Amino acid sequence: MRLAITTAAFALLLAMPSAAQDTATDAATAAASPTGNYDELCDTKPRDPAEAWAAMRRGTMLEWGSTYVRYPKHRLPDATDGSKLRLKAWRGERVSAQAVLWTKDGLDNATVTPGRLKGRKGELPSASVTAGFVRYVMTDELNKDGKGGCGFRPDKTQWDSLLVADAIDVGRSLDIEPCSTRPLWLSVRVPHDAAAGTYDGKLTVRDGNGKEVSLSYSIEVLDHTLTAPSDWHLDVDLWQNPYAVARFYGVQLWSNAHFDAMRPIMKMLADAGQQSVTASIMHKPWNGQTYDHFDSMVGKTLLLDGKWQYDYTVFDRWVTFMMDECGIDGRINCYTMIPWDLSFDYYDQATARVKFVKAAPGDEAYKEYWTDFLRDFSDHLREKGWFDKTYISMDERPLEAMTEAIKVIKTADPEYKIALAGNYHEEIQEDLDYLSIPYGQEYPHEVLEQRRQRGQISAYYTCCTEAFPNIFTFSPPAEAAWTALHAVAGDYDGFLRWATMSWPANPLQDSRFHTWAAGDTYCIYPGPMSSLRLENLLQGLQDCEKIHLLRQELQAQGRVEQLAELEDALSAFTPEGMAANGLSTEEAVRAIHDLLNKL
Amino acid sequence: MRLAITTAAFALLLAMPSAAQDTATDAATAAASPTGNYDELCDTKPRDPAEAWAAMRRGTMLEWGSTYVRYPKHRLPDATDGSKLRLKAWRGERVSAQAVLWTKDGLDNATVTPGRLKGRKGELPSASVTAGFVRYVMTDELNKDGKGGCGFRPDKTQWDSLLVADAIDVGRSLDIEPCSTRPLWLSVRVPHDAAAGTYDGKLTVRDGNGKEVSLSYSIEVLDHTLTAPSDWHLDVDLWQNPYAVARFYGVQLWSNAHFDAMRPIMKMLADAGQQSVTASIMHKPWNGQTYDHFDSMVGKTLLLDGKWQYDYTVFDRWVTFMMDECGIDGRINCYTMIPWDLSFDYYDQATARVKFVKAAPGDEAYKEYWTDFLRDFSDHLREKGWFDKTYISMDERPLEAMTEAIKVIKTADPEYKIALAGNYHEEIQEDLDYLSIPYGQEYPHEVLEQRRQRGQISAYYTCCTEAFPNIFTFSPPAEAAWTALHAVAGDYDGFLRWATMSWPANPLQDSRFHTWAAGDTYCIYPGPMSSLRLENLLQGLQDCEKIHLLRQELQAQGRVEQLAELEDALSAFTPEGMAANGLSTEEAVRAIHDLLNKL
Repeated sequence: MRLAITTAAFALLLAMPSAAQDTATDAATAAASPTGNYDELCDTKPRDPAEAWAAMRRGTMLEWGSTYVRYPKHRLPDATDGSKLRLKAWRGERVSAQAVLWTKDGLDNATVTPGRLKGRKGELPSASVTAGFVRYVMTDELNKDGKGGCGFRPDKTQWDSLLVADAIDVGRSLDIEPCSTRPLWLSVRVPHDAAAGTYDGKLTVRDGNGKEVSLSYSIEVLDHTLTAPSDWHLDVDLWQNPYAVARFYGVQLWSNAHFDAMRPIMKMLADAGQQSVTASIMHKPWNGQTYDHFDSMVGKTLLLDGKWQYDYTVFDRWVTFMMDECGIDGRINCYTMIPWDLSFDYYDQATARVKFVKAAPGDEAYKEYWTDFLRDFSDHLREKGWFDKTYISMDERPLEAMTEAIKVIKTADPEYKIALAGNYHEEIQEDLDYLSIPYGQEYPHEVLEQRRQRGQISAYYTCCTEAFPNIFTFSPPAEAAWTALHAVAGDYDGFLRWATMSWPANPLQDSRFHTWAAGDTYCIYPGPMSSLRLENLLQGLQDCEKIHLLRQELQAQGRVEQLAELEDALSAFTPEGMAANGLSTEEAVRAIHDLLNKL
Repeated sequence: MRLAITTAAFALLLAMPSAAQDTATDAATAAASPTGNYDELCDTKPRDPAEAWAAMRRGTMLEWGSTYVRYPKHRLPDATDGSKLRLKAWRGERVSAQAVLWTKDGLDNATVTPGRLKGRKGELPSASVTAGFVRYVMTDELNKDGKGGCGFRPDKTQWDSLLVADAIDVGRSLDIEPCSTRPLWLSVRVPHDAAAGTYDGKLTVRDGNGKEVSLSYSIEVLDHTLTAPSDWHLDVDLWQNPYAVARFYGVQLWSNAHFDAMRPIMKMLADAGQQSVTASIMHKPWNGQTYDHFDSMVGKTLLLDGKWQYDYTVFDRWVTFMMDECGIDGRINCYTMIPWDLSFDYYDQATARVKFVKAAPGDEAYKEYWTDFLRDFSDHLREKGWFDKTYISMDERPLEAMTEAIKVIKTADPEYKIALAGNYHEEIQEDLDYLSIPYGQEYPHEVLEQRRQRGQISAYYTCCTEAFPNIFTFSPPAEAAWTALHAVAGDYDGFLRWATMSWPANPLQDSRFHTWAAGDTYCIYPGPMSSLRLENLLQGLQDCEKIHLLRQELQAQGRVEQLAELEDALSAFTPEGMAANGLSTEEAVRAIHDLLNKL
């Protein structure tokens, strides 16, 4: 019989009435069930005065806004447009729009429906269009010097706290308080086989009394087809954290309920081009830096007779789930042989305890621990047919440590692929089949060419370091698109983000964490809910794929001027180009997006 | 390949020169290898002045002393006797004598040989007689109120520190410093088939230069035969700690080297009548109270599918070793379902971590954890043929907790035997197949009879609580014999001591520990070496068996007067009898010992 030994605290959270939670502190505030309603924390910022709201033309207004704007919750919105929205999209593309509702009366039990999209030649399937309310979450700000978001933040009072619009809550009703603003997000996923042409729809918000406001929109499906995300040219690696999902959903790790909870989340990643599985092959590969640390997905037992025994049950189940059920079947990234704390777990049969080998790369004990495992792991991976997809993966560590680790890997099985997210080191780059270097670093041109010839991937990443570009909850949403487009503009093969669902204690209400600027650890909310950041990132990633396709097409067709126009727009996605052309992030993102629909 | 992951600290100890260790503090003092030489800590007490030593008749003196005396290291000994020693023994008995050497000159590289024991009808086998130097160890004292030795002693400076003669170091040479005293211990193990009669021997101490001193002695083998220890009437339970042995010997737990180290230690216990195996069925059954805590000898794994899997490899190996190689094949005592910290370990396949079920008897989680295990364990024990010997064992806990635990045990398998060392509780005594109650508590007469009719054992124990009688390193050695004889005098079925080899950091030099009065945790030294305490306990236990045999014999022969004489001598082994007859502990022990050889 399975014991009731999971997070009792979560059960407690679920039991707490969510109505009494209107507070900006994170102590004792309860998140509701991922599938239930929850209250937003209180807005800490000045609100527009009652007179301003009273002066509204109608009790409730609904107009089109911008997907690049986070509309404040208690301000009358700027820059909205009451006219009809005209979207453009390729076949296979997902496009978004943001509408803004503001009300002096309030709406009880409001729902939003995106309507059907009807064209002259037919209708888009109803599943291809979704809409939901944007939800407000607590965030903070960059470090005080404005230079990034790294470092510990145990005392949250030292940073600004403010409510920002971020999560996209599809399919749930909401009470909208009087004198408040509530953005709505519209997404259209154009089928690959949609007929080109214009389709018309109507976004409607209806309250519990049947009162409604609505907005017309249309989408023009262009005669271009976007590649399916699994085949995108740009390599996307957005790390997963199954441990966070188990904790927040209050389900047993690796139970059916856990996989049920993860499936829609991981499919959201797959839709954004994700092709790599994040796997752990030791306890706390990142020293437990996230709210939910990674355990080892491989059991390592030291038997009484001194032999090692390995248990791949969890690893196999996780990888199989990602491949077979979520379509994420590119790489399997196995972390890590060089954790920040050089301490390697095993279950000791003699004592029935988990013990740790404390050893550094280069030590005999390190070599023995890893060589035995890597040999067995290689056999197992080959048996499963996964060996060629598997990368023994490292994070940034000192060069000497990495050099020693590589030796151990190659001794165990010279055919192992190796991955690194870390600084560029000339000395080891040849050994790294996947390499992702920090924003701002560049690959020497020749190296890049050689790596491509060898079939090696050369990507870049952002993390807490970057004040710009980033996807903190307070970052301007267009920066998410910018990071993707920077990969192409900077001639990288891919983009990596180290966390997408490493949720803090209460991710629905509060994106702040005790390290790093808020939102660094996730862009997908429990539910799952997408976010302004993920949707903007997705736009950027789609635009990257469009660039890839258009470059080929324009080149093939000899359309030199358009090609130059494209490259010129793209040039805004490097720091130098940005400085040169003088466009804001949002302008640059909008410009290239519009251009790609024009070429 | 086996990793070098054992106590690096021990290797360090071995590497330290032992010559520089003459200090009474326990910080950074090094114990030598269990099989090598070691230095004693410095004597903190006043020494006899040089003039007193200078006045010695000869440079080195050797005379017979008493086995009940701890001779101070730097005092001219009192109460020695230069005449020939005349021992008496039953066939099958082990008898001891103590000689005392004192010297103004010192002896380098001294050795002691017990000589051959020759009688008119032949010689005793050479293996039946051993001799060795008694070694000095640091001890402390009772609590300041004189009422016992319980409680924490983190700051050793608050208690007296003094060097006492205790360990018996057979077979090693020793440098004996000038102006010091050095006791020697002689043991004769009379074969079961020895011919009655007198045998003569000579104990000799020889130094590196060939100088020697010697003492004559004889042993009269009486026409009585003592039962083999494994068949003694009195139940003896002296707990083992295999974890301490592995640590101090610097060997891998449960390796061949570990069993090699344990074999002579456990045989020493078997020679003292030990018939029970101390086994752990959970992590830290006593909350890690000893320097080396007990791990679980059973691996419990919670599989992903919610089923439990148990690994008995260690348990089986330990029990088999004790039974087959050490002859300790009576009970298997399995600790514990009610640890002091209600936290139960298991290896969690999902996380590759050891986790703990925190649950109290009566809780559903407690019931589930234990019921599943106890059922599987029962199957396993029956398969091994061990079920009838196995006792699910508890230490003193609240009555309600024990009642709940008993329910769980009986639900899992109603035929399980249950053991308790703890206070007498009328409410549960019927369920306890083995019960050991604290010194001073008594079984109601009727209960005792009923328990005996049911084949249940009713024993008593001493621990840190008793100022008298006890076997601390500072306790008068005769108290050890007294505790054994008290079992018979108090009409108990057995005697239990909770520790015999739970060594502190450096047991050869320092018997003090951070809890309890010194020596509470062991009476066998690494080596192994016996001690004045164990030898006196052995004398008492042997005398208990003699009493059992003689009572039967005298009764059968109708020798009423002698029977009365025996019971009278025995009456000194209760607090009341002791007060009534006015004998000292030593006098009472000596009196009954002599009487048993006379009857």
